[in-house]
Amino acid sequence: MDTVYLNGDYLAHDEAFVSVDDRGFIFGDACYEAIVAHQGRFLLVDRHLRRLRSALAEIRIDFDAREIEELLPELIRRNSLDNADFAMVYVQVTRGVAPRAHAFPDPTTSPTVYAYAAQLTRATEAEFEAGSTAVTFPDLRWLMPRIKTTGLLPNVLAQEAAAQAGAVDVVLHRDGVVTEGAHNNIFIVKDACLITAPADDMILPGVIRGCVIEMAREAGITVEEAHFTLEDLFSADEMFFSGTTTEIRPTVIVDGRRIGTGAPGPLTRRVRSLYDAAFGSWHT
Amino acid sequence: MDTVYLNGDYLAHDEAFVSVDDRGFIFGDACYEAIVAHQGRFLLVDRHLRRLRSALAEIRIDFDAREIEELLPELIRRNSLDNADFAMVYVQVTRGVAPRAHAFPDPTTSPTVYAYAAQLTRATEAEFEAGSTAVTFPDLRWLMPRIKTTGLLPNVLAQEAAAQAGAVDVVLHRDGVVTEGAHNNIFIVKDACLITAPADDMILPGVIRGCVIEMAREAGITVEEAHFTLEDLFSADEMFFSGTTTEIRPTVIVDGRRIGTGAPGPLTRRVRSLYDAAFGSWHT
Repeated sequence: MDTVYLNGDYLAHDEAFVSVDDRGFIFGDACYEAIVAHQGRFLLVDRHLRRLRSALAEIRIDFDAREIEELLPELIRRNSLDNADFAMVYVQVTRGVAPRAHAFPDPTTSPTVYAYAAQLTRATEAEFEAGSTAVTFPDLRWLMPRIKTTGLLPNVLAQEAAAQAGAVDVVLHRDGVVTEGAHNNIFIVKDACLITAPADDMILPGVIRGCVIEMAREAGITVEEAHFTLEDLFSADEMFFSGTTTEIRPTVIVDGRRIGTGAPGPLTRRVRSLYDAAFGSWHT
Repeated sequence: MDTVYLNGDYLAHDEAFVSVDDRGFIFGDACYEAIVAHQGRFLLVDRHLRRLRSALAEIRIDFDAREIEELLPELIRRNSLDNADFAMVYVQVTRGVAPRAHAFPDPTTSPTVYAYAAQLTRATEAEFEAGSTAVTFPDLRWLMPRIKTTGLLPNVLAQEAAAQAGAVDVVLHRDGVVTEGAHNNIFIVKDACLITAPADDMILPGVIRGCVIEMAREAGITVEEAHFTLEDLFSADEMFFSGTTTEIRPTVIVDGRRIGTGAPGPLTRRVRSLYDAAFGSWHT
């Protein structure tokens, strides 16, 4: 049984419970982050914590993220994941336990902090070469998806549509304009240019998305943050999903239609190389 | 300490806990209803259960709502609310407990059913006569608000804006087009006509909203289900919120501006009389 973190305590996972009055359970009044580690070294932890702090500030949950900096290595240690090639810590902060009423509770209410660690499996070289699959689905989310809230029913329904179709990822779109995946971002390649939806409040600007944009530009690749349509996607030369647990995942089939040549393309390979090479500088 | 219902058991409220892996806590993957009772007699329970069944079917949580029909009177009894003038039972059904992954879990996963009862206070005659207050706030919700999901962060932020302003309710709007309140519906009166937003997927069609429309039409009042703007609302003759716990609440100040004469108007009073007179026929 793995060990989880709950409000300062380390507990067996199956002994970790929250009150039915927790605003995370009653209202989805919570934010979360997922941070990965390689052999116990966390990746881009500063960017994740900055995003969490900013989300909590935006929804006005008063919380000191230093608690998370401390629990991250401890959860990895207690779950014997120090030597795991690829592990994840999931952290969720809710507005705490209070009688049900929509408006914020008494300001003395303490946030609930829950975290667990898990081993992940990276895609094999063969899986990368084969390319992955996706389906399209309407983006039904609220109008502040930049806040990583646990109110994820729209993402659940989207990801389930992929599962039903035997596909791996989802291409979310608002009236035909592509936004992102259910838990990752989307890049397409057109005429040797990388294109991804702009961080204009209609997407969650992923940490890896930001790194891909920076690395690609430094390497002399043209990157456009611009709206693109499903039509643009279907006629793209290449396409991939990026994300903390997704890494760089080339997609070659969407809704049963072939994207580009039907194999991971040269720019996707280049981005993946840049990503692999950057690990050292991202560790803390 | 009141008694709550959790997965077949009746427990002290402060001893009711759910797993951190409950999809209600992790994903807001849940629906809920609030049903009121007068002296132990439930109001419009069939309509509430029909809406819950339909929401659960839409998000594909497989659940037999007969469990709820049984727990409703039992919770009232165990909390000695049989003689309460106005009480409420809140019921929440989640997709159950499973390791975190967006797509639906193993189909054998049992839904989590949680319910509690509480005494409510009806507005006094003096409060009705004084009229109530509201503020406007952007409707940031997802695109399926007809599903009464617990992913309520947009509603929480809206209701908190009202609380900050010392107001009671919120007028939600999408780019100036009024949708509804944070947990109730909105009617305005123009030239002796009742107007409320259409049940066209951008609102949650409230049970009391439906009853008001039916009763008003039967009484010969013209009712239009039509989009109206903030401008229409500010220039309306009258305005009220309707809802299961809201009942019929005249609003006379919005964003500090007076609506109509600044007192509950004749059509609002007529609707309130129809509402009060209908109780007998709504009880089961």
